[in-house]
Amino acid sequence: MSFNIDLNYIRNVIFKLIPPTAQLTRLEFEGPEIAIYVKNPAFLLEQTGIISQIAKTIKKRIVIRTDPSIRKRREEVIEYIKSIAPPDTGIEGIEFDDVLGEVVIKAKNPHIIEEKSNQILVYTGWRPRIVRAPPMRSKVFEEVMHGYLSQSEYRLNFLRELGETIHRDVLLAKNGSNYVRVTFLGGAQEVGRSAILVETAESRVLLDFGLNPGRSLSPNAFPRIDLLNIEPDDIDAVIVTHAHLDHCGLVPYLFKYGFRGAVYTTDATRDLMVLLLKDYLEISEREGTEPPFTLRDVEQMLLHTITLKYDVVTDIAPDIRLTLYNAGHILGSAIAHLHIGNGFHNIVYTGDFKFGRTRLLDRANYEFPRVDTIIMESTYGATEQPARDRAEDELIRIVKETYDRGGKVLIPSLSVGRAQEVMLILADAMKQNKLPKIPVYIEGMIHEVTAIHTAYPDLLSKELGQRLKSGENPFDYETFIRLEGREPRTEIVESSEPAIIIATSGMLTGGPAVEYFKLMASNPNHSLVFVSYQVEGTLGRRIRDGAREVAFVNERGKVEVIRIKMQVYSIEGFSGHSDRPQLLEYLRHIEPKPSTAILVHGEKNAVMNLANEISRSRKRLGDINVLTPKILESYTLAYNI
Amino acid sequence: MSFNIDLNYIRNVIFKLIPPTAQLTRLEFEGPEIAIYVKNPAFLLEQTGIISQIAKTIKKRIVIRTDPSIRKRREEVIEYIKSIAPPDTGIEGIEFDDVLGEVVIKAKNPHIIEEKSNQILVYTGWRPRIVRAPPMRSKVFEEVMHGYLSQSEYRLNFLRELGETIHRDVLLAKNGSNYVRVTFLGGAQEVGRSAILVETAESRVLLDFGLNPGRSLSPNAFPRIDLLNIEPDDIDAVIVTHAHLDHCGLVPYLFKYGFRGAVYTTDATRDLMVLLLKDYLEISEREGTEPPFTLRDVEQMLLHTITLKYDVVTDIAPDIRLTLYNAGHILGSAIAHLHIGNGFHNIVYTGDFKFGRTRLLDRANYEFPRVDTIIMESTYGATEQPARDRAEDELIRIVKETYDRGGKVLIPSLSVGRAQEVMLILADAMKQNKLPKIPVYIEGMIHEVTAIHTAYPDLLSKELGQRLKSGENPFDYETFIRLEGREPRTEIVESSEPAIIIATSGMLTGGPAVEYFKLMASNPNHSLVFVSYQVEGTLGRRIRDGAREVAFVNERGKVEVIRIKMQVYSIEGFSGHSDRPQLLEYLRHIEPKPSTAILVHGEKNAVMNLANEISRSRKRLGDINVLTPKILESYTLAYNI
Repeated sequence: MSFNIDLNYIRNVIFKLIPPTAQLTRLEFEGPEIAIYVKNPAFLLEQTGIISQIAKTIKKRIVIRTDPSIRKRREEVIEYIKSIAPPDTGIEGIEFDDVLGEVVIKAKNPHIIEEKSNQILVYTGWRPRIVRAPPMRSKVFEEVMHGYLSQSEYRLNFLRELGETIHRDVLLAKNGSNYVRVTFLGGAQEVGRSAILVETAESRVLLDFGLNPGRSLSPNAFPRIDLLNIEPDDIDAVIVTHAHLDHCGLVPYLFKYGFRGAVYTTDATRDLMVLLLKDYLEISEREGTEPPFTLRDVEQMLLHTITLKYDVVTDIAPDIRLTLYNAGHILGSAIAHLHIGNGFHNIVYTGDFKFGRTRLLDRANYEFPRVDTIIMESTYGATEQPARDRAEDELIRIVKETYDRGGKVLIPSLSVGRAQEVMLILADAMKQNKLPKIPVYIEGMIHEVTAIHTAYPDLLSKELGQRLKSGENPFDYETFIRLEGREPRTEIVESSEPAIIIATSGMLTGGPAVEYFKLMASNPNHSLVFVSYQVEGTLGRRIRDGAREVAFVNERGKVEVIRIKMQVYSIEGFSGHSDRPQLLEYLRHIEPKPSTAILVHGEKNAVMNLANEISRSRKRLGDINVLTPKILESYTLAYNI
Repeated sequence: MSFNIDLNYIRNVIFKLIPPTAQLTRLEFEGPEIAIYVKNPAFLLEQTGIISQIAKTIKKRIVIRTDPSIRKRREEVIEYIKSIAPPDTGIEGIEFDDVLGEVVIKAKNPHIIEEKSNQILVYTGWRPRIVRAPPMRSKVFEEVMHGYLSQSEYRLNFLRELGETIHRDVLLAKNGSNYVRVTFLGGAQEVGRSAILVETAESRVLLDFGLNPGRSLSPNAFPRIDLLNIEPDDIDAVIVTHAHLDHCGLVPYLFKYGFRGAVYTTDATRDLMVLLLKDYLEISEREGTEPPFTLRDVEQMLLHTITLKYDVVTDIAPDIRLTLYNAGHILGSAIAHLHIGNGFHNIVYTGDFKFGRTRLLDRANYEFPRVDTIIMESTYGATEQPARDRAEDELIRIVKETYDRGGKVLIPSLSVGRAQEVMLILADAMKQNKLPKIPVYIEGMIHEVTAIHTAYPDLLSKELGQRLKSGENPFDYETFIRLEGREPRTEIVESSEPAIIIATSGMLTGGPAVEYFKLMASNPNHSLVFVSYQVEGTLGRRIRDGAREVAFVNERGKVEVIRIKMQVYSIEGFSGHSDRPQLLEYLRHIEPKPSTAILVHGEKNAVMNLANEISRSRKRLGDINVLTPKILESYTLAYNI
């Protein structure tokens, strides 16, 4: 019922395979990994396959660490690295982590220096940690890197303790009795506050822990874990599928109330999460509302986050193995696969996913080692979206027409994903002369997010990742202009030059997009182009639905009425979600076939509609038991209790 | 969302309606009731309707209590009661409860003295509590009565504290946000360990808390509340639908671990529960197994039990009202109706029920004020039972044939229900000369249970209750002989007289029935008649299935093989459960119609089979959403969270 491998067995394998010349001094758990401390790492150069051989045998990831006594002086190390790095490595910085004995090398082309990792380790006694220096500078990225470096000791202790927990002997499941129970704490027959609790005889894991940004800070905005008698401390791990606040927005809240377990996610989600959570805190402060957590809790979260690469299996509890797969929704978004017990039950949780290519990402993964239950999002369970090509053509046509009549284009956009897609579409159209070379103004937050995109080519579509790795930066087209602060907005709008402005927020609920809107609304030559869903109750939704007068309270506290004369367009088809046909196609393609599909993350109508269609489509999709949970419902997916 | 009536309002109504001459001294909660303490209860004789008027207005039950200063001396009280009681009252004892200021009058015909209750109260200053003196003496009944009398002070404190809890202001549900969540802790796709947790924003209530007698004392024998992070102390109340151990067997276990809330059930279930739980403890001791609770816990349970009459609405939590209805299964068995919030949601939990008349009980109630969800047992969800008349005829025929050939009849029987039914059938047949007047030997435990039957005519079928109230004892037929101890068994078997023996256990797992079986097995003239279901793994089942040789370990520790030559019969149709057609009929008759039916208490096959049939029978039963929970599953029946 459990994977628990005898720790003696692990020890024996390592002692047998590592040559005595290595002078092994100790073994340590480091989160899901096992750290092997040696005094003489030279064997790595001679027996190159040895580490992967051990990893394969014991089914654990291995990291080789050095005894502090053999670590060379920093100057020597820096000199050595510079001497062996080919010129096109593009080294931008070298830092040291004394606690781990790691030398952090930031390089434009990390793959070049990665080849020399073992060589550096053996000759300097420092383990190289090679980080991609993104072509665009990201503040968050640098903060995150710096955060880990400055808290290395705390982090190492956390990882060691976590390792003990993950590899502890199974307690209850020992007699062969186990169960898998999922409870829907939010995001069930609704969109927002996504959170699923997975319980087994051994472990409690959360799949996402988001907030409901559409609601005020009532308990209805929170996943209802409070109603379950479960304290944050009872949770073993949180898996974050992507950085949108409805999936990760309350993870810091768990830390506020004592959670100290691990948060598993991808590198990019970690960075975006920090960015969006800090932004949320700033907006709360500006609006004078009390946020449910503080910056300290975000920092705690960061310290307890463990990033995983796509497709790599990781032990996260004595009876649970996690693998993240590309979800195609936004940068870093993941489908989570849980393998529980030794083949006892397998869950695929899609998070938000796109089963279709976009400019940024490949379509979601659909092949898994095993699947019993799929928990699938259903945002568009009731609707078909227009084809992407048509949406792109429409955007280009609108921009062109606006340009032709001497107007400017305002595109309110979500900072993550949609903005980058629009940038790629516009750059491409200009390159292909479908559009003239119009200046594209990009506001600060969007630039920051774009920079994070350039740091993780492996998480983007193969094609885009390849372009980035080859040194090209597809987000840095010649007409793109990055803006910081409010100063030039009036100038941009009033200048006689043409302009496209991409600004947050995507639904005109605040941010620079609203400022531009106020400046541009009265001119019938300008265009306002919505490229994302406008939620009920937002200014964007009212305007999209035909409002031609809107009132604002201005800086002097007076109500100001703005008449909208600019052209208003709304383009559908850019969604990062699978639409109804794609959801059904996913169930048709997924391998192997799940016996149960649980539909979440959709309004009731979307969920029910999709459920009916799946039940009706037995011939095409096979015999799937479809469940449509309500909030607080629990299903027992497998049991022997 | 809540019923919470302002306590000031209650106070005002009472002060307004009780005349000043009453000299009201204080108001107290007493569990679900409100106690009004007065110095001068004379108004009760003048304004006879006043108490029911108050009760109706404030929707609470009222009890009038007296100030100790006005209570007359005991001798005076006894004299007064005897002087006004008509001779046919049949007073058997008068006792005093100083704490409550009650005089307990045990009478053969309680209804006669009940009419003079107010008169006694006014003239003696003691509130009469009139108890039916059963025509057959029951040890348990007397123990229970005595227990309450000796612990009156503890009990009063408990009731006052409970009253505060029940009538406390609603906390969470104040803002109109509430939910109803049911979790199946046992008895889901199985028979045994019935237990359902009902949670609202305000309360946690258990419907039954049984054990699985068929299993050893592994965790699988227990409802799995241990897996929910819920401590017994977190539970507000337990509702016990009937006294079989698979429904009440672990209620004392809750007390062992700190539960101190109320147990709601009927009078008869309370007594039977105490009897069966003590019997369980005795068997455990005899067999040398460690029971999960002790006698102390059973006593604690008894102290915290509040009995309700059928059809009376009672507040059991700030947002829950409970009504018990006749379930027709065994004496005291109840269908529990929960009214949650003010019309927010209504649950009918059938417990075990019989939608068909038996000799003992009327068929289960099917009319309710409101129903949204029905939680229904499904024991016979897949099978039809023979008609009852045919079963009775068969029993009589077998007895007659055995008598004719000079043999004796052994009827192994459950102590509760089946034995009493068989007694009534046999007495009736003898009265009608369908059978000669054969001695019927009844073993101790069955006699005890029969005595409890005679104490509660209101819980029996109208016809049987009427006969009891009119002074007849249908269980005391002239040929019935009560046995105590083992002595005369050999005599009975070896005598040349005819005999019918009714003895426990019903499945030959132990008890006197096994002793008789050993004595009678070798004689082909004798008959063994099973009248109840024989569970897999029991001796009864093996014999019913055709075994003709069984082995016992005798008193000297040697294996003794017994060859079965007696005739073996198994009569179906006496079940206290609704069979499949009755279950479906119940759903057709129930008023009003529930929108959801949740099927429990049945093997997986029975549950699934019944679920399919209900879904297929839309035309006949209406559109009911059918759910078939697994253990640990939770459903959200209503929510606004």
